[in-house]
Amino acid sequence: MSDKITIIGGGLCGTLMSIYLAKRGYEINLFERRPDMRKNKISAGKSINLALSTRGLLALKKIGLDKEILADAIPMFGRMIHSKNNELTYQPYGKDGQAINSVSRGRLNTRLLELADGFKNINLHFNSRCTDVDVDKSTATFELEDGTSQIFQSDRILGTDGAFAATRGKLQISDRFNYSQSYLHVGYKELEIPAGEGAQFMMSKNALHIWPRGAFMMIALPNPSGDFTCTLFMPFDVFDTLKTNAEVGTFFTKEFPDAFQMMPTLTGDFLKNPTSSLVTVKCFPWVKDDKIALMGDAAHAIVPFYGQGMNASFEDVTVMDECIENFGSDWTKIFSKYQALRKPNTDAIADLAIQNYYEMADKVGDKHFLHKKTLEHNLGDLYPDKFKSQYALTTFSNSPYLFALDQGKRNDILLEHIIAEGAEHKITDLAYMEKIWYLLD
Amino acid sequence: MSDKITIIGGGLCGTLMSIYLAKRGYEINLFERRPDMRKNKISAGKSINLALSTRGLLALKKIGLDKEILADAIPMFGRMIHSKNNELTYQPYGKDGQAINSVSRGRLNTRLLELADGFKNINLHFNSRCTDVDVDKSTATFELEDGTSQIFQSDRILGTDGAFAATRGKLQISDRFNYSQSYLHVGYKELEIPAGEGAQFMMSKNALHIWPRGAFMMIALPNPSGDFTCTLFMPFDVFDTLKTNAEVGTFFTKEFPDAFQMMPTLTGDFLKNPTSSLVTVKCFPWVKDDKIALMGDAAHAIVPFYGQGMNASFEDVTVMDECIENFGSDWTKIFSKYQALRKPNTDAIADLAIQNYYEMADKVGDKHFLHKKTLEHNLGDLYPDKFKSQYALTTFSNSPYLFALDQGKRNDILLEHIIAEGAEHKITDLAYMEKIWYLLD
Repeated sequence: MSDKITIIGGGLCGTLMSIYLAKRGYEINLFERRPDMRKNKISAGKSINLALSTRGLLALKKIGLDKEILADAIPMFGRMIHSKNNELTYQPYGKDGQAINSVSRGRLNTRLLELADGFKNINLHFNSRCTDVDVDKSTATFELEDGTSQIFQSDRILGTDGAFAATRGKLQISDRFNYSQSYLHVGYKELEIPAGEGAQFMMSKNALHIWPRGAFMMIALPNPSGDFTCTLFMPFDVFDTLKTNAEVGTFFTKEFPDAFQMMPTLTGDFLKNPTSSLVTVKCFPWVKDDKIALMGDAAHAIVPFYGQGMNASFEDVTVMDECIENFGSDWTKIFSKYQALRKPNTDAIADLAIQNYYEMADKVGDKHFLHKKTLEHNLGDLYPDKFKSQYALTTFSNSPYLFALDQGKRNDILLEHIIAEGAEHKITDLAYMEKIWYLLD
Repeated sequence: MSDKITIIGGGLCGTLMSIYLAKRGYEINLFERRPDMRKNKISAGKSINLALSTRGLLALKKIGLDKEILADAIPMFGRMIHSKNNELTYQPYGKDGQAINSVSRGRLNTRLLELADGFKNINLHFNSRCTDVDVDKSTATFELEDGTSQIFQSDRILGTDGAFAATRGKLQISDRFNYSQSYLHVGYKELEIPAGEGAQFMMSKNALHIWPRGAFMMIALPNPSGDFTCTLFMPFDVFDTLKTNAEVGTFFTKEFPDAFQMMPTLTGDFLKNPTSSLVTVKCFPWVKDDKIALMGDAAHAIVPFYGQGMNASFEDVTVMDECIENFGSDWTKIFSKYQALRKPNTDAIADLAIQNYYEMADKVGDKHFLHKKTLEHNLGDLYPDKFKSQYALTTFSNSPYLFALDQGKRNDILLEHIIAEGAEHKITDLAYMEKIWYLLD
């Protein structure tokens, strides 16, 4: 008889993991607190669209879903920077054809649930709120819609129940569990730029739009229906100063004049939509023996500024799957190797994501930064094997996040060195480059 | 009618705070989970003795208790380092007469409870476990010994219920509460060197004894009854290798030969006594409006290596009292100023305490370190107004902990500079010193 595995949390990570495990023949019970999103239009209390990139695509490809999802996605080939004077500056993300992809969270989750439902060895349980986990007995207790409780027994448990995971809560009160939750000083509010006539995009479609304003910023991602989902990131105390239609209008007129003209329902949306917070969660250990493992946001919630939250969670799934491939039915080894492979890298992407807030909100409008980006881009073109940017390593590769973090620091020293020497024109000279690589390594 | 204040936690910090508030005329209800320690010999699950120093003494002095407590304390004027070859090295902590004081946690807590019980406006409630706090309604719920629940209403609540505070738990689930719990890789076990005949001390009485062994260490503090409380700090995985009398005996013979000879009940104690963990807790915010404030370990649990846990908690009390003095009945201002004054400093002592583990376990046996300590000592003697060591600022002053942390870093650069120049003989030359102070500032 094959192992029975309980997965707690039917979001993107948990549902994808259920499919990977079902393909290996395990008997899966997937429990989700909310109703079945295929039948009910519900908000997950999370962002509407996501940026799917290389790591996430690899995970979808292994279950044959990548092409279908990409067909409905909108590729964003670069950043479009909007200044206060309505000037536009475009920065490509990578080489020709490299893009991050705007996808709908709801559609992707729905599609994964449909796929999971097609497996005989996956049982889906909705409206089931986890109230307790007994790690040693490998039981989980769920409160059902009618208020009754159900205790569920299995061989092991995967906690994929998000940043405020009930499963993690059970580990947290045990001895020697390291845990931190750290809130950014900025909150966010979702707003909208609707489509024009005939579902026309009101700004260039294939870009991630940014209005960097130093202490705050707005971004916009395109949706297939022609509208853009805007997200305003701003310190909570600045949000608190905008309480009336007039205050909101004055603020947008001054800070985001071009966007304001395309936002007919802005003031109403602004006052109605919630201001949400952004948390980074780190913890350790993620696993106990062969009994339980945390995955996705439950193990490592990050802020959204590198567009890697979902991609990192999907990479958890592919790494867990590789560990199963390598260690067969030795779940103590599988869990322990999964944790060892992922923990340093999810710590790294957590830090990169916070760094990227400051890059997006502030530096992308800075002359020196733009000069460095151009130089970085040219080096990547000239030496594709030798030089890779932090952004490319993070977004367009499956290299470990920690490597991307470290390489980014090394790149920065190199770029500053070349600029300080005024040697931008020498970068085509391989002998010069080899000398400075030698010096800086 | 004066304000009614609920204090949750009748340990050292909560009981001391109740006395300060009672003296200002507030009506205090102090709730403690455990039975009355004056009637029952109970272990708090914490260390047996503590090192009382300047900050703690100031707090006791303000309620007239310092002399009485000091009369029963044993002053420790320095560290006595025990090598593997039974060689002893003595390092004074400060100038002549400066000492940290070994006091019994149980006796100090009992004495504070006795004093509190003498106030008509302090009501003590034992066996009352806090199960819920409603911050906005200013109510706290307690489970009593007979299993019944009691809801208690007051004007405001102080949470002094320790590192695993129930009060903090209520703040933690609210939005935007930063929190971290971080465990040290070493655990600890308490052991004993009993008194000799006629309550004779078997080692020099007026010192804190240290057996530094790099990856682990043992310390011993004297008790008035002639015995020493030893604490062995060691990585958990090393503890796990010592499971039999023979293994413990072999280990102590090799690592702590002189101590082993004075520990007749060692092997039994070792296998019987628990191995406990060491946690650092940081969180923010500590206060909400005029409704609740966290104090002591509930706000900032630290590891014990600087001997400042109790001293820092007592300083919370004197700072809170100064804020009341300055802001009268404006509790929003009192709590907010208390938090602003304390948070950076308790973060600093948390970091200093972790640093000091490595100093005690490893560096105190190191030649270069001892050379620096001598130089530091001499500079302190030569320039008492201009040069103060980090240890002296932390232990023998009421300067902010953050200043001690920063000054320590500056001192270190100075000491390394003098040693690198081979200029130890020049430190009596004021002109030389003024030149390097100028250079390094």
